[in-house]
Amino acid sequence: MAETVTEKIRPVGKRAGNQSMIMEKKAVLAAAATVAGPKEGSGPLAEHYDRIYPDNLLKEGSFEKAERRMLEETCFLALGKLGLSPDDIDFFIAGDLLNQIISSSFCARKLALPFLGIYGACSSLVEGLSLGAMLLEGNFAGRILVATSSHNCSSERQYRYPTEYGFQRPGYSQQTVTGAGAVVLGSSLEEGPRIESITIGKVVDPEIKDPYNMGMAMAPAAADTIYRHLTDLGRDADYYQLILTGDLGEVGKQLNEDILARKGLNLLNYTDCGIQLYYPHQKVHAGASGCACCALFFLGKVYKDMLEKRLGRVLFVATGALHSTTTYQQGESIPAIAHAVALEI
Amino acid sequence: MAETVTEKIRPVGKRAGNQSMIMEKKAVLAAAATVAGPKEGSGPLAEHYDRIYPDNLLKEGSFEKAERRMLEETCFLALGKLGLSPDDIDFFIAGDLLNQIISSSFCARKLALPFLGIYGACSSLVEGLSLGAMLLEGNFAGRILVATSSHNCSSERQYRYPTEYGFQRPGYSQQTVTGAGAVVLGSSLEEGPRIESITIGKVVDPEIKDPYNMGMAMAPAAADTIYRHLTDLGRDADYYQLILTGDLGEVGKQLNEDILARKGLNLLNYTDCGIQLYYPHQKVHAGASGCACCALFFLGKVYKDMLEKRLGRVLFVATGALHSTTTYQQGESIPAIAHAVALEI
Repeated sequence: MAETVTEKIRPVGKRAGNQSMIMEKKAVLAAAATVAGPKEGSGPLAEHYDRIYPDNLLKEGSFEKAERRMLEETCFLALGKLGLSPDDIDFFIAGDLLNQIISSSFCARKLALPFLGIYGACSSLVEGLSLGAMLLEGNFAGRILVATSSHNCSSERQYRYPTEYGFQRPGYSQQTVTGAGAVVLGSSLEEGPRIESITIGKVVDPEIKDPYNMGMAMAPAAADTIYRHLTDLGRDADYYQLILTGDLGEVGKQLNEDILARKGLNLLNYTDCGIQLYYPHQKVHAGASGCACCALFFLGKVYKDMLEKRLGRVLFVATGALHSTTTYQQGESIPAIAHAVALEI
Repeated sequence: MAETVTEKIRPVGKRAGNQSMIMEKKAVLAAAATVAGPKEGSGPLAEHYDRIYPDNLLKEGSFEKAERRMLEETCFLALGKLGLSPDDIDFFIAGDLLNQIISSSFCARKLALPFLGIYGACSSLVEGLSLGAMLLEGNFAGRILVATSSHNCSSERQYRYPTEYGFQRPGYSQQTVTGAGAVVLGSSLEEGPRIESITIGKVVDPEIKDPYNMGMAMAPAAADTIYRHLTDLGRDADYYQLILTGDLGEVGKQLNEDILARKGLNLLNYTDCGIQLYYPHQKVHAGASGCACCALFFLGKVYKDMLEKRLGRVLFVATGALHSTTTYQQGESIPAIAHAVALEI
């Protein structure tokens, strides 16, 4: 009985399959900004960041305050590129890794905008872009500011050990990225890559319990969302000139490819943000992670490649590990999620 | 220049003023469920809860696991009232007070639904209802499950002191509620109170630094959102048969009334969820707080009063304190936010 009722009331319009939505108006990524810490600023993408800080503290009293400053500055940089002020924005959607998403909440205090706080760990940017696209499509806003941040020192000491301890991390561990990214979502009256469809992920838990093994914990969620997206929309993997996962790193990227290959999906134009942010000599083990990982690579590099028409169709899949130190200490495994936005220009 | 551009692209359709949106389809609160801890179950609203637990642990290994169980059970109770299973739901939107919203994330793992994690502290229920209403209005879903939870023992030990310490709390402190609430948002094909309009709040910070003084920290945000809502929609306070704030308690409720009175707004039909959940002899000082506070009172009592037509128009304003133990320890004040949904039947 429930089925029939559901069939009757589930809208067929914008939904494709169970998890994917097709956009009609197509929210435009009208402007984007990225700021990066010193280690990221010594990496291969340095030229693409709008601001690189000489140290991790920015003369602030704590790493948390430095992270917040980075988030605030990247928001104003993004607005500035369009000559906008916060008054021109209808909603601020943001999330980060710190307990109670304090970077986002305190940044929202500074912006003084209607604020929708989200938590998707490292999937926050794409969760925000997805929500923003739906709110724009629904005519609830004309412009939305979406932002996220992470800071190696604030994250490591919250999730694992303070970096000052110099704890020896296993080879499959990843480097939490220090930086922030912000994007102004606008209407089709503006120029830029458009969000053509979105896929909201389900929580997938491969029962990994090692908080250093983020790549392996998150890869099945990424594979699930990519498979779901392509199936919902009846597309082949090569429909996209680039499929980009959030921050799986070398270990997770390989596992994601293996899982999808077993489902008969071979990713041709595929890379992961986690293997793009640092040089091998920077010793980040399996790669980069953190909310800022996909923010820096996608908003810094891929976004520009799209603007300059080097890329036309991109599937951007951000992954998040949804554990906490409490769940880890209580012996729980690490649930993960991945959300996807398909962009075109 | 920015102004003109903005004027041109800001939608006039659904937005009233800067922060409020008027719903056309009006998402329906098709079913709601509440579960409560033993102390709440000994309170004046006991008869209204769907389930009351005899203890705070539910035979789980930790308070956090008990909170998660409560959230999971209230979700299935709400679905059961409509004879639905998770398959009939398009999105699960949830948030809670625990670091990395673990109650919500682990509950999402169990429900296996497309999950949008949110963080608005005790404003989470209304943030979720607002987002859900907009996603339904935008035809992105047919049914959405919105839920939240809090647990006195998991919250107190995370934010302040483990309850086992028996720390003497000041008279203006509030009792974090143990319980959870879930609501199935459906389309106009279903029966129930409808979300007629929403107002997304801005962060307001009265520079309170005492983490026991939640009422005073959150009252200005509540006043700001109520004032904004009534101004945006050109309504008088008595347009609503009930204006309900989230969890301000006695101290915050009085401050909220004082602030609005100074703006020439006298709240006639006004109460706060924080003063409704316990008897005076239960010694909760200034009242109740926590995500479950407004969930238990609104979904347990007010929702039924609306179904039974004892109330026709209600403005539900949930408040959240957006601090963390880190921001407190670093000497920061407590930013707060309040979101509002106007309901009618």
